[in-house]
Amino acid sequence: MPEPYRARVSPRWSDQDLNGHVNHAAVVTLLEESRIQWRSTMPGLGTAGATPTVVAALELNYRRPVVHGQDLTVELAVTRIGTSSFTLECSATQGGEAAVEGRTVLVSVWPETGTARPLTERERRWLEEFRPAKRRTQAPASQISDSTPLELTP
Amino acid sequence: MPEPYRARVSPRWSDQDLNGHVNHAAVVTLLEESRIQWRSTMPGLGTAGATPTVVAALELNYRRPVVHGQDLTVELAVTRIGTSSFTLECSATQGGEAAVEGRTVLVSVWPETGTARPLTERERRWLEEFRPAKRRTQAPASQISDSTPLELTP
Amino acid sequence: MPEPYRARVSPRWSDQDLNGHVNHAAVVTLLEESRIQWRSTMPGLGTAGATPTVVAALELNYRRPVVHGQDLTVELAVTRIGTSSFTLECSATQGGEAAVEGRTVLVSVWPETGTARPLTERERRWLEEFRPAKRRTQAPASQISDSTPLELTP
Amino acid sequence: MPEPYRARVSPRWSDQDLNGHVNHAAVVTLLEESRIQWRSTMPGLGTAGATPTVVAALELNYRRPVVHGQDLTVELAVTRIGTSSFTLECSATQGGEAAVEGRTVLVSVWPETGTARPLTERERRWLEEFRPAKRRTQAPASQISDSTPLELTP
Repeated sequence: MPEPYRARVSPRWSDQDLNGHVNHAAVVTLLEESRIQWRSTMPGLGTAGATPTVVAALELNYRRPVVHGQDLTVELAVTRIGTSSFTLECSATQGGEAAVEGRTVLVSVWPETGTARPLTERERRWLEEFRPAKRRTQAPASQISDSTPLELTP
Repeated sequence: MPEPYRARVSPRWSDQDLNGHVNHAAVVTLLEESRIQWRSTMPGLGTAGATPTVVAALELNYRRPVVHGQDLTVELAVTRIGTSSFTLECSATQGGEAAVEGRTVLVSVWPETGTARPLTERERRWLEEFRPAKRRTQAPASQISDSTPLELTP
Repeated sequence: MPEPYRARVSPRWSDQDLNGHVNHAAVVTLLEESRIQWRSTMPGLGTAGATPTVVAALELNYRRPVVHGQDLTVELAVTRIGTSSFTLECSATQGGEAAVEGRTVLVSVWPETGTARPLTERERRWLEEFRPAKRRTQAPASQISDSTPLELTP
Repeated sequence: MPEPYRARVSPRWSDQDLNGHVNHAAVVTLLEESRIQWRSTMPGLGTAGATPTVVAALELNYRRPVVHGQDLTVELAVTRIGTSSFTLECSATQGGEAAVEGRTVLVSVWPETGTARPLTERERRWLEEFRPAKRRTQAPASQISDSTPLELTP
């Protein structure tokens, strides 16, 4: 039965910014690193660079500050498989608490031209392995209002 | 009349990844840098770190690869002003072509505790200066399908 | 008996540059991360940020390219203890092969002013624990000539 | 008459670390960026990636903290030209004050194999243009002692 992939990634000291927590762009890099771990498990892939995918869209909600000194656990699930692209939902926790949630649209491209490349049957079958049995209900993105209980305490 | 702020930011050689274009997380940093430029124009602010804002949500659509060797022009507009947070819409072009579009939800926080701090009247008035006269129609985010004319050629 | 500290640090995919290996500045960050691990073992320290040290000088010889996909093992040894500063020698291997060697001069500073702060007795005793029994002979830095057998093959 | 190349590079807000100044590894990236600017002026070069050079050694003395909000001016001079490698001396000022000084050994490599590639005559002639008329006397690196008047005030 399909289930999410789980990766562990480590914030670095220098990922922190003047606000004393891991910078939001460094979080994007940490999530990328979790995808690289995931892709490296694809049978017959070799390296992640072999058949490149590029990021076409990104949505993230930062639930609480990511801090240095503790790994992030990132769960990745494939929620859409298109002709050339797919959507990867990610959910990161730190110390058991939800830290970041979102999704990334990735497009498979031809390395020479950078134009969209249709996903192969093998790739589709592999992506299906990470597709949740039933679509997870998902809070709409960017609906953060002032009443959202932001827990931003470092 | 209110109008967007316009910033120029420079990709670095090391912002490029193995795909030969500026990494998507480096683009997030470049957009942050455009916000820092914008915030530094706030009268009486001093430095951007003086009254911190943290990123609560992020949505980006990458329209074409950002490349090294040419500045990005980033337009920033305030499209929502809440009690403690506001939404900043950004639109970046490179060489006159749309490169990245999206929005960021920023929350003003108390530096000591990191908890949400209500925006002051002075801050609200300043934010209003960058609010578009009429709300820009905006393509919904993350609706990228395989028929989207992704121009990913480097 | 004193012996070097050994840290493990992980290159990230995005640490790679267009040359296909980990960028030399990212290696500097990886070595910093190994120092942060080392400093976090200092009894009674709390966090690395508590009593800051800043880098006053840096010397590195890159023996072979650092690659993504394998941890670096970094050995750290204290080779000089001054009034306010000390020298940390580092030696990093990847896959058992020498990758990077060098040293860093670190200065203890007062957090408020950034001026040099004398090392305390407690700090000196701790630093002595990582001082090699006899001074390691060390190839002079930057003596790289064209006859140096650079093993730069990725 | 040969003279140093002068580049301007801009620290980013996120280059700062918890110590409130630009992180020492980010300074390494800024110096790399100044080299990229310099190399892009080489006639017939195309892009910096066309004929790669890799960093074989690095020596830096940090004279005072590099801060955000002001460009760095970097002077680059070629002080040694070997068979496959050359040494680039760099001297960076910020606000007219010496900030960082050092040198980098760069090796020209074959892109396919990463092994050392002899410099061409054209490359040598170009490098000679940046060779100081008489060798600058240079303080020995890493001789920082506790009596060195480190000006580390942020």
